[in-house]
This record gives sequence, structure tokens and C-alpha cells, in this order.
Amino acid sequence: MFVIRNLATDEYPVGVASDVRIECVPIPASSYAMHSENVSQKFLTNESTMSSKIRGLIAAPHTPFTSDGNLNLDMVDKQAAHFERTGVVGVFVGGTTGESLSLSHTERIQLIERWGAIGRNHNLRVIAHVGGNAVPEARELAKKSEDANVDGIAAMAPCFFRSASVANLVEFTRLIAEPAGSTPFYFYHIPSMTHVELPMVPYMETASKQIPTFAGLKFTHSDLCEELECASFEGGKYDVLHGFDETLVGGMAVGVRAAVGSTYNYAAPLYNTLMKAVENGDAETARSLQQKSAAMVRVIQRHGFMAGSKAIMSFFGVDCGPVRRPLESLLPAGIDALRADLETLGFFDWVAV
Amino acid sequence: MFVIRNLATDEYPVGVASDVRIECVPIPASSYAMHSENVSQKFLTNESTMSSKIRGLIAAPHTPFTSDGNLNLDMVDKQAAHFERTGVVGVFVGGTTGESLSLSHTERIQLIERWGAIGRNHNLRVIAHVGGNAVPEARELAKKSEDANVDGIAAMAPCFFRSASVANLVEFTRLIAEPAGSTPFYFYHIPSMTHVELPMVPYMETASKQIPTFAGLKFTHSDLCEELECASFEGGKYDVLHGFDETLVGGMAVGVRAAVGSTYNYAAPLYNTLMKAVENGDAETARSLQQKSAAMVRVIQRHGFMAGSKAIMSFFGVDCGPVRRPLESLLPAGIDALRADLETLGFFDWVAV
Amino acid sequence: MFVIRNLATDEYPVGVASDVRIECVPIPASSYAMHSENVSQKFLTNESTMSSKIRGLIAAPHTPFTSDGNLNLDMVDKQAAHFERTGVVGVFVGGTTGESLSLSHTERIQLIERWGAIGRNHNLRVIAHVGGNAVPEARELAKKSEDANVDGIAAMAPCFFRSASVANLVEFTRLIAEPAGSTPFYFYHIPSMTHVELPMVPYMETASKQIPTFAGLKFTHSDLCEELECASFEGGKYDVLHGFDETLVGGMAVGVRAAVGSTYNYAAPLYNTLMKAVENGDAETARSLQQKSAAMVRVIQRHGFMAGSKAIMSFFGVDCGPVRRPLESLLPAGIDALRADLETLGFFDWVAV
Amino acid sequence: MFVIRNLATDEYPVGVASDVRIECVPIPASSYAMHSENVSQKFLTNESTMSSKIRGLIAAPHTPFTSDGNLNLDMVDKQAAHFERTGVVGVFVGGTTGESLSLSHTERIQLIERWGAIGRNHNLRVIAHVGGNAVPEARELAKKSEDANVDGIAAMAPCFFRSASVANLVEFTRLIAEPAGSTPFYFYHIPSMTHVELPMVPYMETASKQIPTFAGLKFTHSDLCEELECASFEGGKYDVLHGFDETLVGGMAVGVRAAVGSTYNYAAPLYNTLMKAVENGDAETARSLQQKSAAMVRVIQRHGFMAGSKAIMSFFGVDCGPVRRPLESLLPAGIDALRADLETLGFFDWVAV
Repeated sequence: MFVIRNLATDEYPVGVASDVRIECVPIPASSYAMHSENVSQKFLTNESTMSSKIRGLIAAPHTPFTSDGNLNLDMVDKQAAHFERTGVVGVFVGGTTGESLSLSHTERIQLIERWGAIGRNHNLRVIAHVGGNAVPEARELAKKSEDANVDGIAAMAPCFFRSASVANLVEFTRLIAEPAGSTPFYFYHIPSMTHVELPMVPYMETASKQIPTFAGLKFTHSDLCEELECASFEGGKYDVLHGFDETLVGGMAVGVRAAVGSTYNYAAPLYNTLMKAVENGDAETARSLQQKSAAMVRVIQRHGFMAGSKAIMSFFGVDCGPVRRPLESLLPAGIDALRADLETLGFFDWVAV
Repeated sequence: MFVIRNLATDEYPVGVASDVRIECVPIPASSYAMHSENVSQKFLTNESTMSSKIRGLIAAPHTPFTSDGNLNLDMVDKQAAHFERTGVVGVFVGGTTGESLSLSHTERIQLIERWGAIGRNHNLRVIAHVGGNAVPEARELAKKSEDANVDGIAAMAPCFFRSASVANLVEFTRLIAEPAGSTPFYFYHIPSMTHVELPMVPYMETASKQIPTFAGLKFTHSDLCEELECASFEGGKYDVLHGFDETLVGGMAVGVRAAVGSTYNYAAPLYNTLMKAVENGDAETARSLQQKSAAMVRVIQRHGFMAGSKAIMSFFGVDCGPVRRPLESLLPAGIDALRADLETLGFFDWVAV
Repeated sequence: MFVIRNLATDEYPVGVASDVRIECVPIPASSYAMHSENVSQKFLTNESTMSSKIRGLIAAPHTPFTSDGNLNLDMVDKQAAHFERTGVVGVFVGGTTGESLSLSHTERIQLIERWGAIGRNHNLRVIAHVGGNAVPEARELAKKSEDANVDGIAAMAPCFFRSASVANLVEFTRLIAEPAGSTPFYFYHIPSMTHVELPMVPYMETASKQIPTFAGLKFTHSDLCEELECASFEGGKYDVLHGFDETLVGGMAVGVRAAVGSTYNYAAPLYNTLMKAVENGDAETARSLQQKSAAMVRVIQRHGFMAGSKAIMSFFGVDCGPVRRPLESLLPAGIDALRADLETLGFFDWVAV
Repeated sequence: MFVIRNLATDEYPVGVASDVRIECVPIPASSYAMHSENVSQKFLTNESTMSSKIRGLIAAPHTPFTSDGNLNLDMVDKQAAHFERTGVVGVFVGGTTGESLSLSHTERIQLIERWGAIGRNHNLRVIAHVGGNAVPEARELAKKSEDANVDGIAAMAPCFFRSASVANLVEFTRLIAEPAGSTPFYFYHIPSMTHVELPMVPYMETASKQIPTFAGLKFTHSDLCEELECASFEGGKYDVLHGFDETLVGGMAVGVRAAVGSTYNYAAPLYNTLMKAVENGDAETARSLQQKSAAMVRVIQRHGFMAGSKAIMSFFGVDCGPVRRPLESLLPAGIDALRADLETLGFFDWVAV
């Protein structure tokens, strides 16, 4: 029925005339067509359109558990107070740091409702992660989130039956966002966890047309060029939230001014200073602070990042309890060892308010 | 505190004396230590211990939906009758073919309860897939399954926070199996979907000690040597269910006599003939039938395997409806094209009862 | 310029009308179109066409080094004599077991020429691996191989700039085979090493038309269904050589009757007995022997497979020396430990001539 | 002989007392132990130690071929003149852009010798890529490079038998560097091509002790945090050359001041302006230029990056000819289309000297 030819080489991809089978060479996630429209328009980062965009640090709060592993909603208010005190501007509830898919559907609803109820009291923007593999449940989480008056919802790609095309991913996320018709929707791009690595500019191109509430991306991926392109898309109209704390200077170098991360739970003061240094053009200070961030992350990784990160909150009087299986919690001796290593590092001085 | 040395090479892995960090070279999934016990014992496939083991074809039923995508439990009885008629001996409910993680927790309970109620009426062994990422929900599914009188439960590895060690995977599955203390438990090994590829003999070694109800594996992986080792483990005491329909002759060559698969939904007669041919020593007939199986699978893959496979059931009067997003359903024209291709192939003759 | 539509779903893949960019969903390696020609022809394994095909065990000889790591061509004759004595019918020179790409271009020529000179004296079919990343050198190796009167040449996919389409791979191998216009050419399919995993039936379809000397595949991949399809391609006209020793029964179950492997260097008697058992319809003996093969492989893997495998030859009076970096050799203590483990296993009895 | 315990969790990894087998959970490439020494020393980027370090753009020259695919050394001088004119400070000869492993050993020697002879005439620092899979050939290339008076040599990880530990990689590269005892050695870290992704700070820790000529890394990897740590290692003593042109602002944000890349072949003026902007604290100009860089890269990717990139040189009067198989060259129509797209973009203005 058709022939597919690469006009440039005539060799690639191989098209077969009467067969629906197309042997296509996979196109790298970051390779996409430039539109023929006037490209220079894309080069303007219109500072004025950024006035409504998120700026600053969004913590991805841990999901607090009691010592026997049940949801401990009472701790949420303590987390929120801690964030307000340390300069965090928002929370990304039930994301990876919050052990998202380890929670039951009911627990996720309860968690979102609690944050929705108290977040504003602490001047925190609340974005609820509603993604998962089951569309009916994700839609219900979206609806409940809107009912709970959150400031935004987000969903990641399905990680079991993984989206294999941008069109598929847009439709999947459109279905999830639909019941929350008045709530900004963010796509949570995290290929290291979902194994879905589709090109994000094409995603934005399609989602911006098909998802009425589309507001931007949480970009937890190491492709800084793609991050730049997303941040510049349509003159920087959409939020791009930098997802890797330990490379924040890189995200800022490509124009990003908001970030979501796990270490913002306890180290926001360090990063706020870093962000100010960048904005003041003090690259060396920013870099030095990023080195401290990296050193801190390495120490926690050495002890077990997810469990260690959660334990650190208890050093600040916010006991978030253990992690849930399949993650493995630290034993008391391990928590002590982590604390000692952080002290040796100077961590507690770095993050003092 | 310790030094790790490979006694043979003295070079690997690198050990660090006072640090918990060990740089370990990843050990291939299939590489494990031989026990020093008398190995020859492992070479006996004790036919007598196989008397209580599963033999034959277990279909992985599709999860039937109405045309607007809701659970259609009324269709379950039709599926069951069809399986009984075509020579299927059991069902693996809510597995990958059943779109497992696309279902809500509630839907999964309803589906399991329905199969539990009617399976026996059709002489079908019912194994319920209860796995997922949230332990509390998986445990509840296990409990509900036992209450529904299923013949077995199964769980796959967590696919978001992926188990990185056998110990972790055993503990995760132990927790899931625990509430169903009277129901045989199978580990559902499917690395292509979960991205967890841990060695299965070490898993069996540990699970057989730590999970009282451990009964075997559903082996949906292409490592035939490992399949052989699992099938021979402790004299062949545990069930190993072959997971890839299109390589059934290979599984049978390594001693496996039971299989779970999606094409058994509609092609069981072909495979039953294949299994008999193998047991009768007629390798050439078996091979010829496997070629037909492969040709059938290729046709369905060309049209879209998950959606096509589900549509085929309607050719036999069992309308299972569409697939759920993120999977993409066939349009009517596509279903017609699939049917035509299957007719050209001779498929309908191959699977006639 | 064109629109690409999946006639069945109308959604996939996404085609763009005026752009050479096509967003294609990668097609699984094993998914390909069935030809509309009479499929039943493919189901005949025409035993008569197999008379010219290879049958039996082909060892992949180690490349012998002196103790200081230089090529030790004097050992080649000892290897050949050992193979003849133990029932090996051919050799695959300079493959992965032969540390192929670790050898200099000059060393590879010398090795091929030596085997070409002495192979026939020991009733060994000689297939020379000529593949690599540099086409000029591969072509020269092909030419030298033909000049050395080998019985066949083989090449794997390029592993640095990896072929991304079947068309590309066919052209690459065509160029390599071309200077050896009278020598059968085999494609050496080994995705685990090259990271090139393209569908092999489409490869055979195109190669059989474009490479005049195309003779078949060395199939070192775990997709048994694809192996079946390749072995049945055009009535079984082409050689398919089974590549994983520890799954030989599986390969034989899909009709393959020749195999290339590293453990055939020293364990050929065990496998010859296995092959006879299969041909005699004694599946249980075959399986028991495969279990022994698996146990042997595990022991060697535990000590380091490449180095351990090479050391084993010295147990039979054929000292092949160390492996070359980046592979790591065993220390004397390690070689002793390996020997002891093999003795405990019963290995030496299993492989006695 | 030993027991391995994670002091923190007591669960991981699993150690076995009398067995050399250790089940280790793979440690993420970027996770490593912080030394207990005073960490603050690491936070000083000692500008004075950077006086001897490389600064500026190093082009990775294409390897020029005649129209029938043979080495065209006459073009090298034209390339060098072009680089001098456009503000390039050095060349990385025979790297990935130079189609490294597609060249014969002899061609690589000739290429290195030519660049060694003429580089200095054009004020270009010459670093020769000598890496590959065959240690004897890599060592010979190192020796020839030193004889040709290059300014540095580099080697990537072996990509066939891939290094599985840092110790293995250090030894492999040590062997390669050894014959060039007076020439600075750089490790060429490019996991996307070699599939070897080992942690680079541990590599530097060991290489700096074991390779006397160790001078730094060519960092072609997207882990910006690791890049920061390498750039800060021992006070910034070692060269870290940023490897992805389209993320140069990110590399500069983490302190890197030298870069190697393919687009510096023709777009050096744009990047020099970018680097100046960063150094002058003009982040917005830098970002705008990086956007242009990204747009340019996307256009070339759309046409086929390796072949398109090579064709672009002809637009500047430096005809580098076709690419070599397995890479696919552009047809004349494709080259015209690429030129047109670049014109539409404004590319020729951006890169004017």
C-alpha cells in the first residue's frame, strides 16, 4: 500500500509496498524534526511568560509510615512545617521518593487528601502524583486530587505495558488528566524507573494540543539538551521542573528555575543559596555548593539511598519511619553510621536554616 | 572490616578493608555455585515425585471487557467452557495476557473471585496472579484468592522498585504469599516485562526454605538451561511451567510437562497434539506443529499481539472486547484482516477440536 | 511525501506527511511478515536437502598463547589432534572463544592460515571467523581464508557502529564475504556480545539473494522459536549451527543437527552421546546428559568462564596458555581449584573418549 | 573464607563463608565511597593548577576518504587550516567521529602520523585515539603516536569483552598507555558506544596511581554530577574534556573549560562565543547559543548524523568524502536537502568566522 523512503539516502528505512510491516530503525529519543516555521522564535526565552511559572524548590516528600509500616498521616503536618521553615515552595506528593507504586490505591488517596488539606497552610504548592499502570485508578486519583484542591497533578509513563510511541503516551496521560479538568497536568518523565524513553519535545507538541490542562514536565532525565529544548518550547511557556538535585546547576544553565527532588526534603537551604548564586552570576559559589550536594548524595547512596534519605528526616525531628518492601530499611546501627558520615562531611552546617 | 578476594584470581572483586562499599562485578544471572553435596542426586528426575505436579496446558485468559472497557464478568463462564472443550487443564488469571497491572485492585478481586467460583465446574485448575508493586494490595489479593478456593497463586517481581538481589525477591514474594497459607505459591518469572532478571535456582533454593507454600515457577524466560536446572531442582520436586508457547518443544526437551500461555486460549488442540507427539517420541511431528505455532504467532504479532490475541477469541464466539490503554485495540478492519490472514494460514483447521 | 498508516489500527506508527522523519515503534526482533506464498511449503523439513549440510559438533578453539601472551601456533596441531580424537567434526577459528577481537589483524591471519593448513589432516571442517568492525580488514581476512582453503568463513555484526537495519547488516556482511567468492559464508549471530539483535529470518531472506556464498547462520541466541524458523527457512536449505552448548537439546528439538561451542573443545564425547540419544528418541538420556553439561558450565562460570575454559585444555595435555586482557587469567591456585571441582563433579568420566 | 555484611542493614550483599561466589547487588556506576579525608579540600577548584590544563575547543576530525572510500591524507592539511581559522585549539584524531574502529590498523597509524606531522603548524594540540579491543595493536598505536610527537593519546574501554570492574579497566588502559611513557594519557569515557559504564572517580583514583602518564578524561556521558566530581577530583588537577557539544553550557556550569566534539569541526565560532559568554557571566546569551547548537544538531540528526556531519565539511571547502560501512552515506540529493535545511536555520551565519 505504500513505500517509505528516506529522501536523503533512499535506503532507510526499508519500506515494503504491500505489507503493513515496516522495518524501521529506531529513532533516538532525542532526534526529531525541526518545524519549518521560523526557528528564531524558539530562541526567545520570554521572561514575561515566566511570571506564572513555578520558581524554586519543590520537595518530593517521603510517605511517612509508622514503625510497623502503615501510613502515618499525622506526620504530614510536621513535614509541611519543616518545608516551610527551610524554604521549600512546594511538594510533589507520592512520587518516587514517596514510594508511589508501593502504596495501595486507598493510601494514595488518603495521602493526597491530607496534603491537599494542609499544604496551603504552609505556603506550599501541592502537586499530586496520580500515575500508575491502571488507568481507572489513575483517573480516580486525578479526580480526588482536584476535589482536594491541589495545585497540580502529574503522571509518569506506564511501566508495565510501556508506551512505545509518543501518540500512545499522550493518549494515556490525556485519559488520566481528563477527570481533573481544572487542575494543571505535568508529565513526569523518569525513564530510569519506567523504562519509557520517548522524545519529550514531540510529547509536548502533541500534549499541548490534546491535553487542555497540560502545564509542563517534571524532567528526571540526564539529557540536558532535551531539557533545554523543553524549557524553550514555545518561548518557555511550559514549566520544566529539574529532576536531579545533584545536577541543578546544569538545569539552571539551560534556563530552568524550578526543581523537584528528594534532597530538598532536608537540604533546601543549600540549594536555595545555590540558586541565588546562579542568578547573581556567581558560578564558582554555585559550583562549590553543587559539589557539597554531590558529596552528600554519595554518602547517602553508600548507605542505601531510599532508606537513608528517609532516615535523615528523623535527624530533623520528622520521623518518617521505614521504607516499604521491596525497598530495604536501615537498621539502627546503619542510621547511626549514616548520621556520623554526614556529620564528618559538614552536612548539618550546610543545611542549617 | 573485611577483605574480599576471589581465591582463584586474587583480583576480583575489589574489596575495601574499612568500607561497606564493595565493588562487585555483576554475576551473570545464571551463574551460581554448585553445592558441594553429591551432585549426582540432582540428575535424577524422579518420575514418582511428578505425580502431584501439573501436566498439560494452562491458558492465561484475557480479561473480558465490555465495549466501553469495563470488566465483563459474564464472559468468564464462556471462556471457561471454551477451555474445557478445547483441552485446557487450567487458567492463570490476571497475568500479562490478562492485562494484570492495567486492572484496578477491585477489578482484580472480582476477576479472581469469579474464576474461583466457576473454574472447578469446568475442570480447570485456577491459579490467580496476585503480584504487583504494592505489597498490601498483593497480600489482600492473596487472601481473597485463598478465600475464593483457587488452586494456586502467583506473583511476579516488583517492576518499579525492582528487586536487586535474590534475598530481596524472596522476602518480597514471601510477604505476598503469607496470607494464603494453604495455597500453593508460584513465582512468575518474566524478566522481559519486569526487568528483574535474577538467577532462578538460587531463588528456588531460598524460597523453598522460606516460603512454606512455595510450589514452583512460571518460567517466562528464554534461558532453556536455567529452565532445565529449575525443572531438575531437588529431583524435579517443583512445578516449572513453560512460559513461551512458541518454544514449547524446547521446554519439553528439558523435561517440562506443563505450560502457561496466551495462545492456549484458542489453539490448545494444536499444542495438545504437539505434547503427545513429544511424549510418543515423534520429534518431527512435534517440530512441524511448533512451526505452525510460530507461524500463527507471527501473524498475530504483525497485527499487534495483545490486541490481536484478544480479538481472536471472538472468532470462537467468546467476545472478550477491547484491550485497555496503554495497549491499543484493533479497529474492525484490523480484526477482519487478522481473521483473513489466519484463514490463509490454515489456522482454523489447526485448532479445530 | 507520504503517510504511513497501520491499516489495522490507523494509529501506529505515526507518519508525517512532508517530513522524512518517521516515528516508528521498534518492531520486536522476531516479528516479521509472513509471506503470502503457500506457507505449507515451509513446513517440510526436506531431509534430502540436508545431505550437504553440516552435522555434528564444531569446536570453537581457544587461541593458544605462550605464557607471555604471544600467539603459539605450535599448539594448533595438538588442538586438532585432540578434536579428532574426541569426535569433533570441525572448528570455528577465531570466534569469541578464540578471543577474536583481542587478536591483532596479523595474528588472525596467521591463525587462520595455520588451521587452513592442518585442519584437513585431522578430518576437521575449518570455518574462519573474519568479522570485526573494519571492513577492509575483514575483507582481507576473507580473502586470506579462501587462499588458505578453509571450508567456510563467518562474520558477526559490527559491534561499535552497530547495524540498525537488516538491509545495513546484509550489505555489511556482503562486503566482507565478497572477496571469498568460492567459500561458504555464515552469519555469526551473537547479540549478547555485539548488541545487534536484528530479526534473522528477514536477514536470511535478503542475504540468500544478495550474498552468493550465503550458507547459513551460527545461531548464538536464546530465541528458540527464531532458531526453528531459521532452520526451516526454505525447507531447511541453510545451515543453522546451534550456539549455546548448554541448550543443545533445545536446538535439536527444533531440528538443528550441528552445533558450535566452547565446551566441545573438551567435552565432545558427552555431547556426541547426547546427540545420539536424541536421534534415537531417548529423551531422558539426552536430558540427563544436558544436566551434566549444565553442571559443568556452572562450575567453570564460577571460576571465570573464558579463563577457566581455556585452562581446562591443559588438563588434557593441550596447554593453550593464558587469556589476553581485558579477560583475566586464572592463577595457578585457581586452576587447581577448578580441576578439583570438576573432579568432584565427575567431569573427567563424563568426557572420557 | 570470609563473610560480607553490609554493616547498616546486615542483609546485603549476601555473603557465603566458604565459597568464592558472592551475590552482589550491582552498585550504581556513580555510587562510591567518600574518602574519610578532609572533604573540604576537594571543594577547591585551584585555578592555579589549571594553568597547564587544556582550555577551549578540540575538534574530533572526520577521517577523510576519497570517493571510493580510501584514506585521503591530503585532506588533513585542509582540515587543520580550517580548524585554525575557526578557533579550534586541538584535534582528537581517530575518535568516534573519525570512525575509529572502522579503520584498519594501518590506516590508523597513517592518520595519526599525518596529524602528528602537521598539527603543530596550525597551532593545534593533537590527541590521538589509540583504543580498541586488541591490546597489541593499541600499544603499537600508542608507540607510533609518541614517535609522531602528538600531545596526547586516548583510549576507550574495550567494547567486545567489556571491562566489568574498574580494576580491569585501569589495567587495560595502563597496558595501552605504557609504550607511550612520555605522552599524556586520557581515558575516553563513552558508555553509549562501548556499553562499559563504570564509575569514573574510582577510575581516576586508581589510574592516577597506576598510570604514570594519566592526564584526565574525555567525558562523553550525560552524568553531569559525575562530570563535576571528576572535574573537581584532587582539586581539579586533571583534564576533563566535555564530550557532548549540545550540552556544553552544562559542562561549563560544573567547571569544565575544554570540550571535544564533532560539531566543533564546523561550528567552533558559535561555541567560542558561547564559552566567552559563560566566562563573562552572560548566561542568557550562552543559553541562546546553546539553543542554536541544539537546533543545528537536530537538523543533522534528521538527515543521519554521522554522514551528514561529514558532508557539512564540504560546504566549507573541505571534502571529507563518504562514511564507511556500516555507516550509510548521504546521496547527493540528501546532501542538498541538508544544506537547504541548514540555510533555513541560519546555520551559516551562526558559524561565520
